[in-house]
Amino acid sequence: MTPEWIACDWGTSRLRLWAMRGGEPLAATERDRGMGQLTPSEFPEALEEAASIWDGSAPVVACGMVGARQGWVEAPYVAVPCAPLPGGMVAAPGPREVRIVPGLSQADPPDVMRGEETQVAGFLALNQGWDGVICLPGTHTKWVHVSAGEVVSFRTSMTGELYALLSEQSVLRHSMDETTDDAAFDAAVADTLSRPERLASDLFTLRAADLLTGATGGRSRLSGLLIGAELAATRPFWLGQQVAVVGTGDQGRAYSRALSAQGAPVTQVRSDAVTLAGLTAAWRKSRASA
Amino acid sequence: MTPEWIACDWGTSRLRLWAMRGGEPLAATERDRGMGQLTPSEFPEALEEAASIWDGSAPVVACGMVGARQGWVEAPYVAVPCAPLPGGMVAAPGPREVRIVPGLSQADPPDVMRGEETQVAGFLALNQGWDGVICLPGTHTKWVHVSAGEVVSFRTSMTGELYALLSEQSVLRHSMDETTDDAAFDAAVADTLSRPERLASDLFTLRAADLLTGATGGRSRLSGLLIGAELAATRPFWLGQQVAVVGTGDQGRAYSRALSAQGAPVTQVRSDAVTLAGLTAAWRKSRASA
Repeated sequence: MTPEWIACDWGTSRLRLWAMRGGEPLAATERDRGMGQLTPSEFPEALEEAASIWDGSAPVVACGMVGARQGWVEAPYVAVPCAPLPGGMVAAPGPREVRIVPGLSQADPPDVMRGEETQVAGFLALNQGWDGVICLPGTHTKWVHVSAGEVVSFRTSMTGELYALLSEQSVLRHSMDETTDDAAFDAAVADTLSRPERLASDLFTLRAADLLTGATGGRSRLSGLLIGAELAATRPFWLGQQVAVVGTGDQGRAYSRALSAQGAPVTQVRSDAVTLAGLTAAWRKSRASA
Repeated sequence: MTPEWIACDWGTSRLRLWAMRGGEPLAATERDRGMGQLTPSEFPEALEEAASIWDGSAPVVACGMVGARQGWVEAPYVAVPCAPLPGGMVAAPGPREVRIVPGLSQADPPDVMRGEETQVAGFLALNQGWDGVICLPGTHTKWVHVSAGEVVSFRTSMTGELYALLSEQSVLRHSMDETTDDAAFDAAVADTLSRPERLASDLFTLRAADLLTGATGGRSRLSGLLIGAELAATRPFWLGQQVAVVGTGDQGRAYSRALSAQGAPVTQVRSDAVTLAGLTAAWRKSRASA
């Protein structure tokens, strides 16, 4: 198979490629060779190894941490307000044509994103004229206020990383179970949404309740406490806005459930779909300017 | 040297022993053999190995996680309100006389402590008639409301564990420096004390500010953000109360500084001193009832 071009989502822990014809994915492949495992000189070989399953040497459009300072080549941040794909793609050195989408930055409060700008662009490509807030759950969840096709402002919350550290490495790991307990989740969201300052002590309560009464639903409760606190922090973003949640797995479902309980009108969209639509928009833009 | 008795502080990660005569420590020793590294059957040997540097087979009074369900032998929690040493010491099986101080529990909100009750007892032994709040910084910081010689209520915050996980294992590890920046600490405390809901996003701001402007003082700022949020959560404990902070190292100093900035009258006391005074009180109690 000979792709017209290759769409590339290269994050901290994973490299994902799609063989593309126009906006259509023909095939996909994935490697555990993220930015975090590579030195700058190792990127070309990592890309070739993965892309060589397809014929030819199709050009690549890449987004994500590949463009960070410690990545392949730095694609300097563009400051908001601006379009999610404001131009400024950077060519990476190597045997194949590779263009990297720049991340976005915000001066006050200081904030950065890499990769999510492409998903925002993809969402807008699929939903022309949409105004509102896009929530992108992840290790570092992004809340992005979009108006008139531009990113007006955004905010990052470390909820996903806190969840991973607390559930796998803290004392709370002893109180995690695999049941999904929606009632425990809902109650936990309500607790920290109304009293966000109690997060650090509510977390220990989860452990103590298990010790003293054998309470279950620890994993749902942990997720709910963290998301409730995040919703309290990001209320200025989502209150009175239509919200699109990117991601249809457990994490996207949790945010959607919590936001819906607050009366926010929530749309859930597939993460891969908006990533590909965004990379396609970047590809078309690079051809138009070539 | 032949001790009259041996004081033992046996926590999750460490075993500490003091050779005692009455309330006076004659010598001390320490091992990296905490409850977390031992199965129940390994406790007697671990104790004998450490205690055998002294002559005789003096009886031992122990506090801490050694009395947890997964420790040597469970010393069941006693529910507050009660004296910090309410009796109920449990004899551990083995060649030597060993008595373990029980932890305290609270039904609503669910909470537990093991080891800190002994420090509270020690503080009260050294400060008879004291009423107020005792703050015991640690992996799981305890706030203990004491009145008329009893623990009325308490609250645990996971601040110390969050600090360790975030500074060593999260994306923030890239923005930690070894400088102590009091101004950054004070500003961070003020930020989350007044807007505690922003903790999860303020944490990422620390990283973004480093990326965008090379901001320093990351470690002080992280400490300040977490302690500020904790002070917001525990305001009902410390507001209008005299506060004793147990611990004179960096962590105790940080809590004292943050509380003092809020106008709370703070006393700092040495952790070892109150542990020994508490174990001595437990020892005398066990003799009186023997």
